Amino acid sequence: MSNKKTTPERLATFSDGVFAVLITIMVLDLKPPAEPTLTALLPLWPTALSYAVSYLFIAIIWVNHHHLLKFTHSTTPGLIWCNFAHLFMVSLVPATTGWMAATRFAAAPVFVYALVFVLVEIAYIAFEGKALSQAGASEVTPPLRRMTRIRSGLVLGIFSTAAAISFWSPLSGFALVCCVLFIYLTPRAPELLRKSVRS
Amino acid sequence: MSNKKTTPERLATFSDGVFAVLITIMVLDLKPPAEPTLTALLPLWPTALSYAVSYLFIAIIWVNHHHLLKFTHSTTPGLIWCNFAHLFMVSLVPATTGWMAATRFAAAPVFVYALVFVLVEIAYIAFEGKALSQAGASEVTPPLRRMTRIRSGLVLGIFSTAAAISFWSPLSGFALVCCVLFIYLTPRAPELLRKSVRS
Amino acid sequence: MSNKKTTPERLATFSDGVFAVLITIMVLDLKPPAEPTLTALLPLWPTALSYAVSYLFIAIIWVNHHHLLKFTHSTTPGLIWCNFAHLFMVSLVPATTGWMAATRFAAAPVFVYALVFVLVEIAYIAFEGKALSQAGASEVTPPLRRMTRIRSGLVLGIFSTAAAISFWSPLSGFALVCCVLFIYLTPRAPELLRKSVRS
Amino acid sequence: MSNKKTTPERLATFSDGVFAVLITIMVLDLKPPAEPTLTALLPLWPTALSYAVSYLFIAIIWVNHHHLLKFTHSTTPGLIWCNFAHLFMVSLVPATTGWMAATRFAAAPVFVYALVFVLVEIAYIAFEGKALSQAGASEVTPPLRRMTRIRSGLVLGIFSTAAAISFWSPLSGFALVCCVLFIYLTPRAPELLRKSVRS
Repeated sequence: MSNKKTTPERLATFSDGVFAVLITIMVLDLKPPAEPTLTALLPLWPTALSYAVSYLFIAIIWVNHHHLLKFTHSTTPGLIWCNFAHLFMVSLVPATTGWMAATRFAAAPVFVYALVFVLVEIAYIAFEGKALSQAGASEVTPPLRRMTRIRSGLVLGIFSTAAAISFWSPLSGFALVCCVLFIYLTPRAPELLRKSVRS
Repeated sequence: MSNKKTTPERLATFSDGVFAVLITIMVLDLKPPAEPTLTALLPLWPTALSYAVSYLFIAIIWVNHHHLLKFTHSTTPGLIWCNFAHLFMVSLVPATTGWMAATRFAAAPVFVYALVFVLVEIAYIAFEGKALSQAGASEVTPPLRRMTRIRSGLVLGIFSTAAAISFWSPLSGFALVCCVLFIYLTPRAPELLRKSVRS
Repeated sequence: MSNKKTTPERLATFSDGVFAVLITIMVLDLKPPAEPTLTALLPLWPTALSYAVSYLFIAIIWVNHHHLLKFTHSTTPGLIWCNFAHLFMVSLVPATTGWMAATRFAAAPVFVYALVFVLVEIAYIAFEGKALSQAGASEVTPPLRRMTRIRSGLVLGIFSTAAAISFWSPLSGFALVCCVLFIYLTPRAPELLRKSVRS
Repeated sequence: MSNKKTTPERLATFSDGVFAVLITIMVLDLKPPAEPTLTALLPLWPTALSYAVSYLFIAIIWVNHHHLLKFTHSTTPGLIWCNFAHLFMVSLVPATTGWMAATRFAAAPVFVYALVFVLVEIAYIAFEGKALSQAGASEVTPPLRRMTRIRSGLVLGIFSTAAAISFWSPLSGFALVCCVLFIYLTPRAPELLRKSVRS
């Protein structure tokens, strides 16, 4: 039955729809100020900063999701459910972003924000495992797999540390979360990391 | 005319869009608390629980929808309209989820929530009938069809019972609705059921 | 350049996204009542009825849009802009639906609701013209084209009459708008009409 | 690995989803008036005008985006990130549209609105550069490339001027922004411009 081949594409289409709604639903929180002055925009910096960071994170998540699905030749129930768990965790990002912005980076909201990213990362690792299990050794070499695991563990550690730190210094916790942006900025980071280690 | 073949895919694309919006529109109800403390999150458990359950249900509905469309070789008006009826019923899930959460699982909202799932199931059974009528006997064997019908009837019975019970004990009604999650968790449940019956 | 062939599909994907958001954004107006009783749902009948009718209209518009795009072999600027005009008019449906529901079918909102459908129909006729101009005589026969034009003119007349009537009797105007649902229910109506005329 | 070819299509699908949500999310700001009279609609003209202009701009952006992706044979990280930057800037359009409408075209909101379009244009120029760098000389001739650059510079200049003017006369600034609509109305404008220059 040739129709079965269309399945990975439909998983991608659905996930794209969810990512597109999540990344744009946050703009509903960009409430313009009541007064028509530029200075009235200044107190909105926590909202602007939170929105920009969350937008960038969802973009990074999409790029990685997109990269992983290229190795997927068929959709298994495991892959579908790991994907749903991953999307569920990502769906918590807009609400926590809004809470963090409304409280101007208070301790508890930054802790929850970092915690949501811990959960996003755990679900992503599970999804990554399911997706890469379908790739042959020629597509993903053993050293590359090891580097991918190291990166995932590293990111998980940074998010957990950020969550813990945020009780003492919320802004430091938030800054630490932002550090991950640079690690995950390109899906081929593990590959580059491996090359720099080798040379 | 070769363009006609693209039709089932467009039905899938549109349905995916609707599912993606419905599953994410519920996050707009995840209103963060006013105070920046973790204890302020505790009274939000009905919202969190309702959201998680409704998310899981829409995920299950998507998986089953996705599975059924694999047997569809062309889109007939009947299939399209059963699909719209199905999507309409699913579109009532976010509002009833919000009502149930806001009233902290009061009797009437849980009754309406279960009732919406009765309607979702009735529309799903009609959609299933239209989709499977296109599948040949080699794709869907007669015992598998019978098992599919038994499962659908069973789920319909559970949802109806949950609706009735919710007037006496809303939480029991809600718990009964959640039981269906396990029955519908995999689209191949009828196949597994048949195998366990045979052996 | 073979990429040009993907264009009609991307027009369909984008339009599907807009239709999916429009049809589901209306559920945000389904505000559950404050009290957890079934009788508290009764005063919501104008919202429920308006939502159901608008949902059905957008479904019908999607079916017809979908049907027309099957005759489209390439996307021209004219087709794209007629499509955007059409989507713009459809995008006014949720707001007017909400106004009609909030005012419980008052004269002015029903007039505007009918007027929006007049505009939707005008844009649809332009879109239909652009799409069918690409179809050969073997795909769309001259009598079928004539019947399509008659149907479009008829629907335009009904919507205009409904708009006019709604100032005297808003509910009659709304009922007349609903009559169109039956005319447009199937995209092959003109074909059937032609056959019944012939025999 | 043949899967890599699906990548440009997935970039298009995701972008279409974002455009579809952005163009329709603005309808949530179309709040119907409290009174059921036609005269109650009159004070809403700033909202209606802003919505129509922003809708048209996002439509134009989509048409141009769509046109550029036809020249893209593979997705590079640079193309993906320019696309995300572009979508981010476009995502600021609904909020600034709402602010401009709520303040009835006050100076600061119109300035910010024009500024957002300056940013959209800068991101678009970067995206255009990445996309056209993949096109061969036979697809995009050197004079066409030059004309495209001239048009982009011209539009950037108009948006910047509009931003500056809006402090003295907000409505003139807004009118100047609208002028760009005519320049960008067709993606083949540079081609036509070149032809008119030659003849």
